[in-house]
Amino acid sequence: MAQNIYDDPAFFAGYSTLPRSIRGLDGAPEWPSLRAMLPSLAGRRVVDLGCGFGWFCRWAAAQGAAEVLGLDLSERMLERATADTAGATGHDRISYRRADLDTLTTTELPSERFDLAYSSLTVHYLSDLDRFLRTVRASLVPGGTLVVSVEHPIFSAPSRPGFTTDDRGRVVWPVDDYLDEGPRTTDWFAPGVVKRHRTIGTYVTGLVRAGFTLTALHEWGPSPEQIAEVPEWSVERDRPPFLLLSATR
Amino acid sequence: MAQNIYDDPAFFAGYSTLPRSIRGLDGAPEWPSLRAMLPSLAGRRVVDLGCGFGWFCRWAAAQGAAEVLGLDLSERMLERATADTAGATGHDRISYRRADLDTLTTTELPSERFDLAYSSLTVHYLSDLDRFLRTVRASLVPGGTLVVSVEHPIFSAPSRPGFTTDDRGRVVWPVDDYLDEGPRTTDWFAPGVVKRHRTIGTYVTGLVRAGFTLTALHEWGPSPEQIAEVPEWSVERDRPPFLLLSATR
Repeated sequence: MAQNIYDDPAFFAGYSTLPRSIRGLDGAPEWPSLRAMLPSLAGRRVVDLGCGFGWFCRWAAAQGAAEVLGLDLSERMLERATADTAGATGHDRISYRRADLDTLTTTELPSERFDLAYSSLTVHYLSDLDRFLRTVRASLVPGGTLVVSVEHPIFSAPSRPGFTTDDRGRVVWPVDDYLDEGPRTTDWFAPGVVKRHRTIGTYVTGLVRAGFTLTALHEWGPSPEQIAEVPEWSVERDRPPFLLLSATR
Repeated sequence: MAQNIYDDPAFFAGYSTLPRSIRGLDGAPEWPSLRAMLPSLAGRRVVDLGCGFGWFCRWAAAQGAAEVLGLDLSERMLERATADTAGATGHDRISYRRADLDTLTTTELPSERFDLAYSSLTVHYLSDLDRFLRTVRASLVPGGTLVVSVEHPIFSAPSRPGFTTDDRGRVVWPVDDYLDEGPRTTDWFAPGVVKRHRTIGTYVTGLVRAGFTLTALHEWGPSPEQIAEVPEWSVERDRPPFLLLSATR
């Protein structure tokens, strides 16, 4: 069972202040890269695994998706997603359901149902990657697409994450424990937020083993244009914060 | 054109003292992982891109490969490879040729010729990855396999590589410049050794774009058994030194 930190009041309040919570997809700097990985959605069936406030679900419906299912573990997030979706373009094609993505079955995720499975910054909360990937693959039609983002393993590896100054006075990202996978507990809006550190090898091997064909692997960092707009993002090029993957069934 | 550092006398002398130069494949700790990625070689045609002293070529011939071609830029290495191969098992099925892997053509690498293309710790010296991958893919028979190892991008990224102590007194690997690809010049047996830093994303995207299907991505670190044998290798689990990839045409 995944930790339901998003229903922690302090976490929820803090998370709600992020640009991506307020502005949605346009507040997420990796969104243009993620969007470039997506197939055309017109007339397609889409599932968003870890849908949060429903920004992607509403965007998919506005792109003409025939059916959009958003799953999330957080009741608070689903409440706001539902409220924000009332009256949105294509709202009658969007439904939200509560689900623990660590224990998904064909009840929540019917077989050969979806053309696209999308999951943004969620999978690093899950404890059983192989089970998740197998279930998601089974829910895709043949030729269907999975697009997923996670915290980059370089970002999640360190025993104590955060830029640091080394004995030569350089600001560096202090990598240790990269190959030692497992829970990483940090304080982020609330104490004791548990994410799972996995290597890139584990993500890729997991996809291949589940029967996917990998089509793209993008280590996201800000573009020169984004850095010109938000200069403090330049350090994100020193170690990428996000890993984006796409694969087909 | 790739830098021919292996023909530098100081570099060659130093490199020749490495366990992998003296003991061959068994002196390379990543070899068991790389070997596990290989198809059966009996009756197959094999090319080794960056064959060095010819250890892999001789091993492949001993496995029953029908034809083994070793290519390398270094005259000194090819001389020793040729000398060491005289009288080896299957030596009459092995040939060596000098080639710059950055300018390979179908003369050196005939179309649809090989069942396996193998390249160990060579590709990070090349300046044109896409050209190399396209040429190698064309030289494989349909269903043929590419197995390649490179320095891991976490290893090659830092502007000043080497474990360092941070302001909390921790020994860490100081990652910076990860997303900024290009030459990295270090002193390693000789001054001014130029390797190319590329991200994992660039390697994987390069393979996909060249028409390969990725079958495995392994970030190599020592096993508990290897650390028990050589305790100082334990830091290699903090940041993997090698990236191993396999793909099929």
